[in-house]
Amino acid sequence: MKKQQEPVSYGGYLQLDKILSSQDLKSDELNAHAHDEMLFIVIHQTYELWFKQILFELDSVKVMFQNDYVDERNIGIAVSRLQRIVEIEKVLIDQIRILETMTPLDFLDFRNFLTPASGFQSYQFRELEIKLGLKTDKRIKYSQQAYHVLYPEEIQERLLDLEKQPTLFGLLESWLERTPFLELTGFNFIDAYRKAVDKMLAGERAVIENSNLDADDKLGRLQLMSASEKHFDSMLDEDKHNQLIREGRRRLSYKATLAALFINLYRDQPILHLPYRLLSEILDIDELLSTWRYRHALMVLRMIGRKTGTGGSAGYGYLKSTAESHRVFADLFNLSTFLIPRSDLPDLPEKMEKSLSFYFTQQGK
Amino acid sequence: MKKQQEPVSYGGYLQLDKILSSQDLKSDELNAHAHDEMLFIVIHQTYELWFKQILFELDSVKVMFQNDYVDERNIGIAVSRLQRIVEIEKVLIDQIRILETMTPLDFLDFRNFLTPASGFQSYQFRELEIKLGLKTDKRIKYSQQAYHVLYPEEIQERLLDLEKQPTLFGLLESWLERTPFLELTGFNFIDAYRKAVDKMLAGERAVIENSNLDADDKLGRLQLMSASEKHFDSMLDEDKHNQLIREGRRRLSYKATLAALFINLYRDQPILHLPYRLLSEILDIDELLSTWRYRHALMVLRMIGRKTGTGGSAGYGYLKSTAESHRVFADLFNLSTFLIPRSDLPDLPEKMEKSLSFYFTQQGK
Amino acid sequence: MKKQQEPVSYGGYLQLDKILSSQDLKSDELNAHAHDEMLFIVIHQTYELWFKQILFELDSVKVMFQNDYVDERNIGIAVSRLQRIVEIEKVLIDQIRILETMTPLDFLDFRNFLTPASGFQSYQFRELEIKLGLKTDKRIKYSQQAYHVLYPEEIQERLLDLEKQPTLFGLLESWLERTPFLELTGFNFIDAYRKAVDKMLAGERAVIENSNLDADDKLGRLQLMSASEKHFDSMLDEDKHNQLIREGRRRLSYKATLAALFINLYRDQPILHLPYRLLSEILDIDELLSTWRYRHALMVLRMIGRKTGTGGSAGYGYLKSTAESHRVFADLFNLSTFLIPRSDLPDLPEKMEKSLSFYFTQQGK
Amino acid sequence: MKKQQEPVSYGGYLQLDKILSSQDLKSDELNAHAHDEMLFIVIHQTYELWFKQILFELDSVKVMFQNDYVDERNIGIAVSRLQRIVEIEKVLIDQIRILETMTPLDFLDFRNFLTPASGFQSYQFRELEIKLGLKTDKRIKYSQQAYHVLYPEEIQERLLDLEKQPTLFGLLESWLERTPFLELTGFNFIDAYRKAVDKMLAGERAVIENSNLDADDKLGRLQLMSASEKHFDSMLDEDKHNQLIREGRRRLSYKATLAALFINLYRDQPILHLPYRLLSEILDIDELLSTWRYRHALMVLRMIGRKTGTGGSAGYGYLKSTAESHRVFADLFNLSTFLIPRSDLPDLPEKMEKSLSFYFTQQGK
Repeated sequence: MKKQQEPVSYGGYLQLDKILSSQDLKSDELNAHAHDEMLFIVIHQTYELWFKQILFELDSVKVMFQNDYVDERNIGIAVSRLQRIVEIEKVLIDQIRILETMTPLDFLDFRNFLTPASGFQSYQFRELEIKLGLKTDKRIKYSQQAYHVLYPEEIQERLLDLEKQPTLFGLLESWLERTPFLELTGFNFIDAYRKAVDKMLAGERAVIENSNLDADDKLGRLQLMSASEKHFDSMLDEDKHNQLIREGRRRLSYKATLAALFINLYRDQPILHLPYRLLSEILDIDELLSTWRYRHALMVLRMIGRKTGTGGSAGYGYLKSTAESHRVFADLFNLSTFLIPRSDLPDLPEKMEKSLSFYFTQQGK
Repeated sequence: MKKQQEPVSYGGYLQLDKILSSQDLKSDELNAHAHDEMLFIVIHQTYELWFKQILFELDSVKVMFQNDYVDERNIGIAVSRLQRIVEIEKVLIDQIRILETMTPLDFLDFRNFLTPASGFQSYQFRELEIKLGLKTDKRIKYSQQAYHVLYPEEIQERLLDLEKQPTLFGLLESWLERTPFLELTGFNFIDAYRKAVDKMLAGERAVIENSNLDADDKLGRLQLMSASEKHFDSMLDEDKHNQLIREGRRRLSYKATLAALFINLYRDQPILHLPYRLLSEILDIDELLSTWRYRHALMVLRMIGRKTGTGGSAGYGYLKSTAESHRVFADLFNLSTFLIPRSDLPDLPEKMEKSLSFYFTQQGK
Repeated sequence: MKKQQEPVSYGGYLQLDKILSSQDLKSDELNAHAHDEMLFIVIHQTYELWFKQILFELDSVKVMFQNDYVDERNIGIAVSRLQRIVEIEKVLIDQIRILETMTPLDFLDFRNFLTPASGFQSYQFRELEIKLGLKTDKRIKYSQQAYHVLYPEEIQERLLDLEKQPTLFGLLESWLERTPFLELTGFNFIDAYRKAVDKMLAGERAVIENSNLDADDKLGRLQLMSASEKHFDSMLDEDKHNQLIREGRRRLSYKATLAALFINLYRDQPILHLPYRLLSEILDIDELLSTWRYRHALMVLRMIGRKTGTGGSAGYGYLKSTAESHRVFADLFNLSTFLIPRSDLPDLPEKMEKSLSFYFTQQGK
Repeated sequence: MKKQQEPVSYGGYLQLDKILSSQDLKSDELNAHAHDEMLFIVIHQTYELWFKQILFELDSVKVMFQNDYVDERNIGIAVSRLQRIVEIEKVLIDQIRILETMTPLDFLDFRNFLTPASGFQSYQFRELEIKLGLKTDKRIKYSQQAYHVLYPEEIQERLLDLEKQPTLFGLLESWLERTPFLELTGFNFIDAYRKAVDKMLAGERAVIENSNLDADDKLGRLQLMSASEKHFDSMLDEDKHNQLIREGRRRLSYKATLAALFINLYRDQPILHLPYRLLSEILDIDELLSTWRYRHALMVLRMIGRKTGTGGSAGYGYLKSTAESHRVFADLFNLSTFLIPRSDLPDLPEKMEKSLSFYFTQQGK
């Protein structure tokens, strides 16, 4: 019996009594009413609600990938949920415009009352970073301290515990390593790819050498070519890749990187459509989070200038630097460096191509 | 002594314990977990938080206009706060994209559990409509009943009481009636305006008559001209205006309408900048609310088709019709009909122009 | 040899000499410079560029569906291109905010100079409507005339010719009719669906009858139930569906409608992911076009009030009514009416389920 | 006689024959049709159209400020036009989503054909940077060369000439220096401000010293306090300000900075409303341009990875660094550092306050 007995009301269902009674202005408490404090509270509450939703989606996706065997049906669902996170992130960015209707002077009316609270203390945001896969040693130091010491002891423990759990990065890496694309039907992807790259680079080099560019310009471009060739080396040679990992300049394992490259190169194959979208949504999530961080940093700069934050935080400089450094899936962004034009792409063996296809409509009719 | 004693924490300040513990899924309670119900709850909670913020700003603006004498300083503040409402409305519209990541089938997983709750029961939204100035007799009938009978008795009383309070529409009307522009320094605005309109219409008529259009087309356009002239009549003649009010086709008093027209026509005068922006923000609010209603109706159509809502409501048809009918400031939209080109605009007497100006930089240097 | 010889320059490639020299202000020609006319020209030119792009994508999608046999690989590409149209539409809507920085009075500075040109004369927009599948007899009459008489004769012919070409609506319909889902492995979809619907409706009716609602309310809800049951009848009975088509209340053929319903109901099957997204993007396109029309109508209302357009067009009233009437894929919106909860969904035969699946990762390992 | 004789047509007025015939695909010319090249061309053309519009607005604003005496009426108009630029910038950012529907592999289909053209060659964008006031010596080096050598000689000259013209930055600075606020009626702003700052800082220091923080934390915060005090020194002491200018860390003259600070602090005065909005819109323009640069850089990263651009440009790294370094109005952002709470703000002398006010409604009634 699934149907409930008691009639549900809109307000009761949404627990509006709690939601709408959770705005107590510090400035009122201190008899110095500051009109804009209400906005400050409400917008942060909506941010936290959306963080909760993002975590809820992220957790559900992680569960799907935690099994050794990922049901294919789930890839489609995972893509939908990651796409929902993307749509939420867009709104998180749009919302900044609302906060910017509060001017710096309006903020000063109540800013001091909030000391030492700081947005940095958002537990859910830390949780999000960790669950995506931000590594502790990649974190920008905040006030010269390990980030977690700013939290009460109980929260510290939860954060340290969280860091030991599987992350989206790790789960994606394992899944990529397990995908069978690279081993299907005897197609040696890395060999075919190497030949295609060599041919492409030789062609590009010839174009420069045969061009009418003046000597200096030609030299400059040939130097850039060399850099580019060296770059490809790092993809064609597992040892070099692993060396870059040791140096902290790459993170994704070699096998997973090749699988992701394969998906990107052959994404026109029907069966690779969903894996490609999966990677694509994850890039979107990282890109929009980065954009949000950047916009947020600019907004803070405009609001408090070069002052330190209410919690004594490093303010604008810190926030801005996280926009780049806290990007978790940088390796996926960098993959584009290693793509080659479709016209240079090695053909898949017919048998393999067939195994990557499926059919909707009646054939041979 | 304004500074607080106890250190404020981020989570405590935002009452996150309450905010983040207010999501109980009906589908969980009924042992039929529906993943998307979380989104459904969270997005409605953010909507209600934003409605609270809009009402907070609206109330503060109404207070400013409730005095007989409106401090000029307040016009600037009112404009800022109305503009904040505009920015919030944009996010309300953008958020619909998030909800649309929930597909109709996903919604069906828990829709039945919510009966008979309905978004129509949002008290704050009704409050917003009433405070803006939506008149009860203008409301689209909802399920063939007076709208308030759908609420518990206590809420009904609050709504009926609210309807007796001053509205933004009414306060704006009074303020417009009290503005001194029309009486300043003996400039007879309505006379000057009438002459300018007559000249403009005569010119337009001449253009058509002297054109190379074929007879039918010319006739058609001249008929449109007559309609246009009749339209202007209704602005130039107070009795006709009042007749339209009695017929329910206009609402704003004649005096207030003329003041608003004056502000629109002479908005280049420095002193009219803020009054013009005030009218402009109110139009934005109405336009975006209308857009939100329309987008919301489309989303509902897509989600449940032509079904009735969970509360037995009339669904798409009802929602769509409110997009137009519940527009409160239709008279301000219509004002554009009565504008005339700057080149036809009567010059203000020098003395009046001076009284509408002010100066920032050193003159005569 | 694919590489070009001559070096390409940014400005030459984009033909900026033409693009950036195509803004001649009428008001300048008439020695009555109106600053805002530049914006008016530029924004319309960007609209036309985007229309060109939309048509380019739409044409490429149509070609894919014009073959009897649609390569599955193309569904993924079609989805991507339709999604691009969606992103463009969002920008078309966003751009209205730019135009709204032009005030009604600013527009009047040059509006008369444009007579009798009218946005209605956008050939590309008409082309878009026709290619999507807007039927001539569904068009809202514009100035009481057939829409095409407003164009020069040569254009009229092109439009009338266009109307004879295959439309996205028609091609989608054929493709849906050809999909094999309904006939796969002997699963009788319509029978299974009918049983599920009957069970669901009986359940809903029982809930109402056993509820504590007062007599009037119960009666009201039961009446709504009857309406709902009648609605389902029209889907379960091909004759009733065809009757609705004859009455102009439905358009999509019965077979195509069932296929679309099947895709919606079983979209969790991996192989249905892309067909589902295809339908989904088409809905998005229609919904956003509708939103654009509505926003555009509101903007026109605000700009010129209830005046007729420069071309003598019917202005706001006309534009607003097209927002609903010119929606081409209304049948897809209405499909939601016929969805049933997953919990009531008939299971697919195992053999069929298998044929709708595919696998990425290594199984049994 | 202002009315034109010949009837205007929509297509003729917009010169659609030119606009819509300016898309020639290199890939078609080379017999290697790449579908996505059309989007690439069209989106860049819309960008250039919008750049033209932005420059048109910017030029018109610059003219207003080029006179020694700026008509007050013009401040309102300038604000409107700057706000239009803001709305355009939002669309420029939104448009990136459209370009991101082109995948890296799709881009590779035609990328090589474009060599050595590069978006860096957009003359209008360079023009915009220069007209806003970007100084040549502040430019990030692009490919290790002065930026203008990348252009044909004729363009180089135009760019170098442009750099000698007045910029928005320079004109705003002069206007601020000429505003009379600081000298009105004997109010010594800098003295009053100094006292208020001293009092505020002393208060903040006391709060820290009397707090229950542990010794380390207290020390840390007191160090931050010292930094903050030093910061204020640089505003209170003209010599220190000028020293920072010499070091390239500030740019706006001391006098202009104080005027801008005054406007920010006393913006509630009616007469300061427009000057405040003027500063505010300029901040918006800079902030959104910065956001656009950042989003654009991310998009490029995603599209081509760490490769160099088609013109041999430095790609992502270069683009990202301009987001911060090419911000022209950094001094206005930094102003927030020097704001003090309204409660600490020195009262204006009554006579001065009166001169900053004006009245709409009937007084003394």
